[in-house]
Amino acid sequence: MTRAQVIGETISNQGLGRQPSPDKVFETMVAYQRTAALKAAIDLDLFTSIGEGHTTASALAKRVEGTDRAVRMLCDSLVVLGFLTKGGSSYGLTADSAVFLDKRSPAYVRSARKFLASPLVVDGFRDLATVVRAGRPVSDEPFSEEDKHAAWAEFARNMAGLSFLVAQETARLLDPDAEIKVLDVAAGHGMFGIAIAQQNSRATIVALDWPSVLAVAEENARRFGVSHRYRLLPGDALEADLGIGFDAVVMPNVMHLWDRPTNIRFLKKVHAALVPKGRVIIGEFVPNDDRVSPAVPALFALNMLANTTAGDVYTVSEYRAMLSEAGFTDSQFRPLPPAVHTAVIAIKP
Amino acid sequence: MTRAQVIGETISNQGLGRQPSPDKVFETMVAYQRTAALKAAIDLDLFTSIGEGHTTASALAKRVEGTDRAVRMLCDSLVVLGFLTKGGSSYGLTADSAVFLDKRSPAYVRSARKFLASPLVVDGFRDLATVVRAGRPVSDEPFSEEDKHAAWAEFARNMAGLSFLVAQETARLLDPDAEIKVLDVAAGHGMFGIAIAQQNSRATIVALDWPSVLAVAEENARRFGVSHRYRLLPGDALEADLGIGFDAVVMPNVMHLWDRPTNIRFLKKVHAALVPKGRVIIGEFVPNDDRVSPAVPALFALNMLANTTAGDVYTVSEYRAMLSEAGFTDSQFRPLPPAVHTAVIAIKP
Repeated sequence: MTRAQVIGETISNQGLGRQPSPDKVFETMVAYQRTAALKAAIDLDLFTSIGEGHTTASALAKRVEGTDRAVRMLCDSLVVLGFLTKGGSSYGLTADSAVFLDKRSPAYVRSARKFLASPLVVDGFRDLATVVRAGRPVSDEPFSEEDKHAAWAEFARNMAGLSFLVAQETARLLDPDAEIKVLDVAAGHGMFGIAIAQQNSRATIVALDWPSVLAVAEENARRFGVSHRYRLLPGDALEADLGIGFDAVVMPNVMHLWDRPTNIRFLKKVHAALVPKGRVIIGEFVPNDDRVSPAVPALFALNMLANTTAGDVYTVSEYRAMLSEAGFTDSQFRPLPPAVHTAVIAIKP
Repeated sequence: MTRAQVIGETISNQGLGRQPSPDKVFETMVAYQRTAALKAAIDLDLFTSIGEGHTTASALAKRVEGTDRAVRMLCDSLVVLGFLTKGGSSYGLTADSAVFLDKRSPAYVRSARKFLASPLVVDGFRDLATVVRAGRPVSDEPFSEEDKHAAWAEFARNMAGLSFLVAQETARLLDPDAEIKVLDVAAGHGMFGIAIAQQNSRATIVALDWPSVLAVAEENARRFGVSHRYRLLPGDALEADLGIGFDAVVMPNVMHLWDRPTNIRFLKKVHAALVPKGRVIIGEFVPNDDRVSPAVPALFALNMLANTTAGDVYTVSEYRAMLSEAGFTDSQFRPLPPAVHTAVIAIKP
């Protein structure tokens, strides 16, 4: 039997309605090239240049100081990837590119890219097989505590813009007129607490995070004009005394960093810090109970695999169970457009 | 005006039928994580283990010597990416994964992955913005001639399996009964010439490539039982004397490495080496004249940008024009299933 026959037999044994195709395998093997192309275009400010009216490869090549051939090849790839349009030899921005990739837009994502391309995120993906065997991140140069705090301060600086709309949506889950005291756990850029203070002029915010990170939150509170109702609680969330009498505790993107027992232990602390009828609001990537849908929150698990020892994405049922075990009732799940985040809200009875 | 209003205004100014979404931007920024996940699964032989009947995360964790949590997170991601199925807590192979990712399958792609993950391919994508500015590949440690020959020999070894079916399809474009002499230019693994020799017992093949690469082709010719009709022509294609009297010249994946003038010059050499009514058969990534469709051949341009000084993907019209300028007529384009390659065939009048 020839090799062709063996392959033919293998193929027909699959009982497929179609011929098997390696397309998806190869597409995924070179998926990193998509990241490289988009990164290059952002680095070159190509989208901004097109938005300004430089629309041919040669005009763009002059503008970004590249060669015609290279710019044309990059632009054509960006058309294939859905970030540019092409008519004749002229390139244009798509509607989404104009909003998120032209630096003249207030929703420009460059700083988010800086974080997503940082060693804090990328290094863990160098050799994921070794991570799977070790069961924890593997790095040649593990982060010191100091480096880690600096990296999260950088994260806070870079991700504020991206979080703006989601934070505004989250704030809408609270009564805008009640006099409330709110704890923002692992506040980071502070945008979640700040959004609440913006929407409710009687709200007071206490922001908890490491000191280097709180400096970023404090600066943002000033910039958004709410610093007179903004207090700082420096420390590590797991060790800090949270205080008492909070009407709400917001926890944006914290619980995915911890394992289930740690989350329950911390939720009990939150429970103790809340007034009766107070609520916890968790902003998170929440996949369905199958753990494989929707795609974006489900795939976020890869980041927790690559970069944390015990972090995970937790499902709807798992959040419900953890909250219940910590004494909360009435868990509700609300989508937070425009992002792929979910708000998980529960009440202290 | 608040920042939220500015963003709102920006968004409504787009005149969109829907709210703008950064989803595609972020999906592409982290597309490299898909490559990392698939690479890890292949490195761990996860697909083979599932094919052998280890279908739960804990059974698989034992088998690949990883932790339950890590294996479950990786497997769930592979379900999202379309490489595994999931029912309850049990994972299964998709039809395509069984054919291409289980090492017991003759169409297993691991060696292709070795090439696609090699520095020869990957290094050029480290900083594509700098490549665009320089107009040529930028590398800290440029390849020596010797390294380059060794890398292409490695390429030849790793890509033979993947090229098997495409080479068989290409060979079908020639008369299987005529006594013919065929030149295989930049033969690499030799699979194209070898397929012709397999399908036509009266065909003689002359394989042209660097000596280190020809060693791989010669070994394959022996393995497929055609070495008695297989001659070696060691040298660089652009400098070598091709000889004369060929009924066909096959050029698999060569022309994308060169610029247009080099291609025309070489096609004239091929023309001189052919008998009247002889044909050239080019196996290539050929996008449509718009250069942005179909996706796979169009995106292949990124590889030529990252890793060659003057290479490119050429369109249907460009192949027609280059062939015509070199004296060929009757250019025809045939898809080469199951891959995304096209055979370009032309006749020496």
